[in-house]
Amino acid sequence: MNFHVLTLFPEMIMNGLETSILGRAAAKGIVSFEAVNIRDYTLERHGKVDDYPYGGGAGMVMQAEPIYRAYEALVEKIGKKPRVIYMTPQGQTFNQGIAEDLAKEEDLVFLCGHYEGVDERVLEMIATDYLSAGDYVLTGGELPAMMMIDCISRLVPGVLNNNVSAEFETFHDNLLEYPQYTRPEVFMGKKVPDILLSGHHANVEKWRREQSIIRTLKNRPELLEDAVLSKKEQKFLYELLRQQELENAQKVKNKEKAAAEHDGEETV
Amino acid sequence: MNFHVLTLFPEMIMNGLETSILGRAAAKGIVSFEAVNIRDYTLERHGKVDDYPYGGGAGMVMQAEPIYRAYEALVEKIGKKPRVIYMTPQGQTFNQGIAEDLAKEEDLVFLCGHYEGVDERVLEMIATDYLSAGDYVLTGGELPAMMMIDCISRLVPGVLNNNVSAEFETFHDNLLEYPQYTRPEVFMGKKVPDILLSGHHANVEKWRREQSIIRTLKNRPELLEDAVLSKKEQKFLYELLRQQELENAQKVKNKEKAAAEHDGEETV
Repeated sequence: MNFHVLTLFPEMIMNGLETSILGRAAAKGIVSFEAVNIRDYTLERHGKVDDYPYGGGAGMVMQAEPIYRAYEALVEKIGKKPRVIYMTPQGQTFNQGIAEDLAKEEDLVFLCGHYEGVDERVLEMIATDYLSAGDYVLTGGELPAMMMIDCISRLVPGVLNNNVSAEFETFHDNLLEYPQYTRPEVFMGKKVPDILLSGHHANVEKWRREQSIIRTLKNRPELLEDAVLSKKEQKFLYELLRQQELENAQKVKNKEKAAAEHDGEETV
Repeated sequence: MNFHVLTLFPEMIMNGLETSILGRAAAKGIVSFEAVNIRDYTLERHGKVDDYPYGGGAGMVMQAEPIYRAYEALVEKIGKKPRVIYMTPQGQTFNQGIAEDLAKEEDLVFLCGHYEGVDERVLEMIATDYLSAGDYVLTGGELPAMMMIDCISRLVPGVLNNNVSAEFETFHDNLLEYPQYTRPEVFMGKKVPDILLSGHHANVEKWRREQSIIRTLKNRPELLEDAVLSKKEQKFLYELLRQQELENAQKVKNKEKAAAEHDGEETV
């Protein structure tokens, strides 16, 4: 799989991707990545790639021509028209499902905007996907592009050393990960849970699954709707929910009691 | 404002942040950032910072001690206990509101996990916030940390050259941004909308707001619930919605008609 990033900051992209898992995968020849400097494709003498927005307003807009020419050179090199992802808060929010879809492509192009944006016409001409990293404003598309590339490349067979590793990660069965512990057994008075030292594989597995369910219920309860649970685990979750309800009911009771006592004091 | 990143990949952080807006802000002395190499704080002879998970399983877990010692050195340097953000899909999804809250701090620490995670005990001891970049699996916390730092630093007064620029960006009034155009007037047969060349400021402003409303309705309709609109703009949105309904009704009608014709054919 080949990643191509159209950017004004090629060094940022190359440094960032070389360091991570992608650097090792590239060394193994499983994936490749390149940062194309949009500035290399301007016809303007001074290397200018942006200009004032028509209609006025603050900031500068990236011009259509250098981007289009960089794209054309890429199409010629690849030999076909690849999917071009434009990073924008206007786009669909990136998630694991989108990553799985994109991981099927042989070539992917990421167009990173900067300044006040990119001339709309070139987007209409080349962008096939509009993706957002999330509901926040960033300086440019470089960091979201790197993040998406990291996520997508992990799904390419052979990139992860250990397939088990990918399988057992967050969102497996729609549950959050269980807590992890490593040496030493006691750190500043805090001990590793006994069960993890028991050597009883089935019990460890059961405990971990339960921890995952507890955490998901606490932090991301909406995930539980699509969680894949065994009959026993469903019962465990049901018990947790019942307990939660009892606790909430008790809280309401205590509050009422406190309020009643307070009223009583006032009338004394 | 000072950003401190606890990481196993300090170069990735430094390269990434120096390039972006943060590099210029740091040069101006408005913000500072540093990457603390967790590996510098291990007491292990060979610089080891991870070990096998208790209870078995794939991958390696980052050990508590080097992280805790790196944190302690930081607390001593800063002179107080800062907020420590641990990057994890278990956490709350980062958004602009969280960025605004974090931008009020003088010091922020980002702890970047890698491998299969971090020993739970050190997280219990030092982490104050658990944040997620979104619902996707990444190799490490470095890219999300850089993204959050980019977003937060933009909210620190003086970081953006142009305050107008921040104000008129995406999510202003809960609307997506309008399309942008810059020179040339005609690019490969595509012309800039006439209104932007009219020089009539009020009309340009009206057109841009309407474009923002159209885009938000098309791509992120849920944002419109909290959008700040004038009476006239509300009417414009209402007209758009009515048109959309008419079109949908027409589509249903056409479908019914086609189905009826199809039935007719069958009975012939």
